[in-house]
Amino acid sequence: MKKIEVKASSKNYPVYLGSGIFKSLPKLMKSHTQIKNLFIVVDSNVNSLHREKIEKLLASGYKKIKLLEFTSNEKNKSISTVQNLYSKLINNKFGRDTIVIAIGGGITGDIVGFVASTFSRGVKFIQVPTTLLAAVDSSIGGKTGINFGNTKNLIGSFYQPDFVLIDTDFLNTLPEAEVVCGLGEILKYAYLGGEQFHSTVVNNLSNLIRLQPLQTFRIIESCIRFKAGTVEADEKESGLRKILNLGHTFAHALEVEQNHSIKHGQAVIVGIVCSLFLSNEMGLIAETYLDKYLELPLALREKIRIDKCNVVEIYKIMLRDKKGRGGKIKFVLLTQPGKILIDVEADEEKVIRAIENGVSLFV
Amino acid sequence: MKKIEVKASSKNYPVYLGSGIFKSLPKLMKSHTQIKNLFIVVDSNVNSLHREKIEKLLASGYKKIKLLEFTSNEKNKSISTVQNLYSKLINNKFGRDTIVIAIGGGITGDIVGFVASTFSRGVKFIQVPTTLLAAVDSSIGGKTGINFGNTKNLIGSFYQPDFVLIDTDFLNTLPEAEVVCGLGEILKYAYLGGEQFHSTVVNNLSNLIRLQPLQTFRIIESCIRFKAGTVEADEKESGLRKILNLGHTFAHALEVEQNHSIKHGQAVIVGIVCSLFLSNEMGLIAETYLDKYLELPLALREKIRIDKCNVVEIYKIMLRDKKGRGGKIKFVLLTQPGKILIDVEADEEKVIRAIENGVSLFV
Repeated sequence: MKKIEVKASSKNYPVYLGSGIFKSLPKLMKSHTQIKNLFIVVDSNVNSLHREKIEKLLASGYKKIKLLEFTSNEKNKSISTVQNLYSKLINNKFGRDTIVIAIGGGITGDIVGFVASTFSRGVKFIQVPTTLLAAVDSSIGGKTGINFGNTKNLIGSFYQPDFVLIDTDFLNTLPEAEVVCGLGEILKYAYLGGEQFHSTVVNNLSNLIRLQPLQTFRIIESCIRFKAGTVEADEKESGLRKILNLGHTFAHALEVEQNHSIKHGQAVIVGIVCSLFLSNEMGLIAETYLDKYLELPLALREKIRIDKCNVVEIYKIMLRDKKGRGGKIKFVLLTQPGKILIDVEADEEKVIRAIENGVSLFV
Repeated sequence: MKKIEVKASSKNYPVYLGSGIFKSLPKLMKSHTQIKNLFIVVDSNVNSLHREKIEKLLASGYKKIKLLEFTSNEKNKSISTVQNLYSKLINNKFGRDTIVIAIGGGITGDIVGFVASTFSRGVKFIQVPTTLLAAVDSSIGGKTGINFGNTKNLIGSFYQPDFVLIDTDFLNTLPEAEVVCGLGEILKYAYLGGEQFHSTVVNNLSNLIRLQPLQTFRIIESCIRFKAGTVEADEKESGLRKILNLGHTFAHALEVEQNHSIKHGQAVIVGIVCSLFLSNEMGLIAETYLDKYLELPLALREKIRIDKCNVVEIYKIMLRDKKGRGGKIKFVLLTQPGKILIDVEADEEKVIRAIENGVSLFV
């Protein structure tokens, strides 16, 4: 079991990473806190697929345990689910001395983290990410959030967990589409982390798709270390942390334009491609390098199919989101892996051409 | 204008204290941030009484200003008000670059602070307390909260403001009952702060009731400095900060038993008296000192009338609140002003006798 420390300015905490380590959760909890009241929210799919493991946790001798299933989708990432969870906490007589545990993917972690951060002004919180995307990205760094009024993650908090436990065994039951979603965020790190990590990901893409244990483990570890470093430097996203949004401005607009029929991690891959094209449009990447950098996302193009899409509509959604909220569209672009620019503004025609070029590869 | 620094572990910020300083708010905001979008929530009473001042703020050349009135009472300190405020933010196209300003008493500051802490994972927040209670207590220290499922402040966050502006001119329009509420928290500091501050409050009680400017200013300043010091030592209330709950366990139960017909600050005065009696029951304060320490709250007894009350019911409410949430009733007691004990457990009969003795003085 690896232990990776995240040293955020508000809190230090470890990420435990290993195969088969879920059974160590009770022991790890006891080493972190004396609190004996567990409020567990588990993704309903994960609960069906791993019932035996989770039942062992329930039998681990805790004074009070309540387990709730959650059907994780964007629609349920809502304030009414939050109110329902508060009521469940109250009706089951949970107080300030509670450990809230989220077992599931990004949506589960985001909403349960928000509940943990606001119940009794914040209680203990443990993230157990079970998807590749949550393991490499959303479970680390303390962003919690829910959707409100058609805007993704409009309401939320920065609230670091007490620890994160990643048991890579959970990944073995992921459908391929979910693995591809995780690869979306891993690709992001491939561009953020520098030439060497970019090459590592390129060379191991087929290992990652097959979830080859050793290489997958190593790459998850690298992604976590990279994210931890970024969060340590800028926990509240006032500057550097914005690099983690590479491809995401395009991705969010595409998700809305596609009416959420495309998954977030898949949209991130398309978004990264658009960012590469825009970086080229802006003269940041030469043509020859563009082709080289496109190899990685294009190796996944067969896994992502967009039926049809309206390029101008995607641009309008980006514009509406930003203008509506009093700002201009700012892009994360790059000159080469590891050389990232944030807050870049771009002309409409260049942005539209980048979307056109990017999306056309997946239609 | 005095500037008092609060150095909380999550954030340092100033409290500006002075007479007639509300007009400096635009200038102070500009010295803190470049953000030009103001979302102001003002207590509706305060808005009627100080319309001219507030209209000047609206005309202070900010790019975007939205002012909302809020009818502050415990019923409105709810999640539905929170949702309404989120919707107002969205519909008026406010984004991450927003300054949220709360102008009002404790209820207004608590709920608006919660909205500021969760909208876009936290935006700029300024507290303008207009009651004596909010000035000396609730606006300092970053506790935000709303009521949920019949429990006061069950949902909330620790979220420090960017600054606090206390214009003592607002106090001049307070009804006497509100002044007495503020005195409730000031009395608390009189016992927490030590013999000398206790004597200062005793000697100035009539000045405080009349809001004599110089003495009121000095005492507000002392209370803020004491609270700031406590929050600096223990922002998240894991230990020392609990002393600020002196009298509050009794007070909350009394408020519920009286169906909120007694105001919080008034209930705190009765609660402090109960704490003094319980400290005596526990052998912490000798009889002669008890009489001396009771002088201060008893000087206010004519200002607080409880029609009738059920002592055992008050005890049951305390018990239900704590047992229901998995704990025992813990008291903040004292041996003399400045010598405080936290987390004290006590026998039922002693607690009931303390409530009986305390409440009987106000019935």
